Amino acid sequence: MPLDQLTILAPGLLGASVALAARERKAAKRVVIWARRSEVRHALVDAKLGDAVAETAQEAAIGASLVVVATPVDATVTLVREIASSLSASAVVTDVGSVKGEIARQGHAVVKGHAHFVGSHPMAGSEKTGWKHGTANLFEGRTCFVTPLKSSDPKAVEIVLEFWTALGAKVVSVDPAKHDRIVAHISHLPQIVASALCSFLSTEDQSWRNYAGGGLRDTTRIAGSDPELWRTILDQNRAEVLSALQGYQVELAKLEKALADKDWKTVVATLARGKEYRQGVR
Amino acid sequence: MPLDQLTILAPGLLGASVALAARERKAAKRVVIWARRSEVRHALVDAKLGDAVAETAQEAAIGASLVVVATPVDATVTLVREIASSLSASAVVTDVGSVKGEIARQGHAVVKGHAHFVGSHPMAGSEKTGWKHGTANLFEGRTCFVTPLKSSDPKAVEIVLEFWTALGAKVVSVDPAKHDRIVAHISHLPQIVASALCSFLSTEDQSWRNYAGGGLRDTTRIAGSDPELWRTILDQNRAEVLSALQGYQVELAKLEKALADKDWKTVVATLARGKEYRQGVR
Repeated sequence: MPLDQLTILAPGLLGASVALAARERKAAKRVVIWARRSEVRHALVDAKLGDAVAETAQEAAIGASLVVVATPVDATVTLVREIASSLSASAVVTDVGSVKGEIARQGHAVVKGHAHFVGSHPMAGSEKTGWKHGTANLFEGRTCFVTPLKSSDPKAVEIVLEFWTALGAKVVSVDPAKHDRIVAHISHLPQIVASALCSFLSTEDQSWRNYAGGGLRDTTRIAGSDPELWRTILDQNRAEVLSALQGYQVELAKLEKALADKDWKTVVATLARGKEYRQGVR
Repeated sequence: MPLDQLTILAPGLLGASVALAARERKAAKRVVIWARRSEVRHALVDAKLGDAVAETAQEAAIGASLVVVATPVDATVTLVREIASSLSASAVVTDVGSVKGEIARQGHAVVKGHAHFVGSHPMAGSEKTGWKHGTANLFEGRTCFVTPLKSSDPKAVEIVLEFWTALGAKVVSVDPAKHDRIVAHISHLPQIVASALCSFLSTEDQSWRNYAGGGLRDTTRIAGSDPELWRTILDQNRAEVLSALQGYQVELAKLEKALADKDWKTVVATLARGKEYRQGVR
């Protein structure tokens, strides 16, 4: 059943893709958008990304069945607080942030008594950022985590689950703390691994990269991501990322020792374990 | 000008691709192939990969203008030694191995007085292995290192350079030791980084990988490579790989410390350096 009104606040790549996907899949009868900067609001009007572009976040929130807050993770709670009193009692607020512990807890707290907050994290994105890069099929077949608290309203949770399913995502409902541990490993650690590899290689002769094959290109693709965006993610998930990074460093140190010792049994066993794991990646 | 006879010994993915590319681009008038196992030789006859399939390596080498030895790096020199006395004086022998120091030196030594050896390393490959996966366009636009010694015959070097150019590769002529340092950084280190990441992630809940987006998939693609093949590469390039790996570990440790200290300036600077480097990768 389509939502009566979907409101998207501060669309970047993900928010714009939510708008496009919702319209294409008829997941909402009406899409209202708001962006902080007036020139972006004007561009959004011209691009016809939604049915209406509101002048303020509060105005956009009025009448919304579902609000998707699409800011970077360090701005989410502040914006949810700003719109809380404009929401109708049945309204549900969600987000698209890559870290969920703090946002799920604080988002719930600031809308309490006004409406409902249930966090989301679609595992979709690109090293390209900005609303102009949004696409209607960004969520197709991708995981979308939904992270209710024990105290979350079951009907609100259901609305969020149904919404992402309607957008083509495979929805996984999980506790916010567990979510943060999972993404520290499968998303944030790979980012650090790739960025540190490029950062290290930049200290050697940079022309060497011109000789590289597809291996370097693929291994480092996500190092092209936005540093400021990642600062906010690493800040919010610092403890879990540090734990994953330390585990990875131990693994690397073991492999280094095996190489130094010409312990080929351990080297091959490590590569084989890696290969087996990789073969299970979709 | 096409070669009169191109001989390919022990074709896997690369050797078969050399055969297919040479035929498609008319780089040789006649292609002779040899494989160690008789069932492979029979399959090669059926697949019509070359104009002839020889029963022995020596037989395949007779009359060759250029011999491409396509074995794993630890078997190259032995095979070159086996064919040395069957080569004509003007024959040139090359290989496709990922490490060049030892092969360039020993290959040169074992054919000396019989013919010429000039090492090659096309930066092309796949996590798929075996001659059946060969393709005619594998070298198209890819770097191919050619690694002459100071004592190499200039005409022999020219033949190898022209051959890879004819197959569509961008040829880079470089000293074997420098080659090994370059590939330790842009090829062997990324392999270790990706394999260790997968190996580490396999120690956590493996079902998490089902939730991953394109980031994990790309960052770990090469971890699907053959462990035994990589053992031989890491063995031959151990000193340079250890040096690159240690440099990477220092970079990771710095980033870990910055995260632990909430030193966001350093974190962002590292990510930004990585991004800038990545933007220069083709």
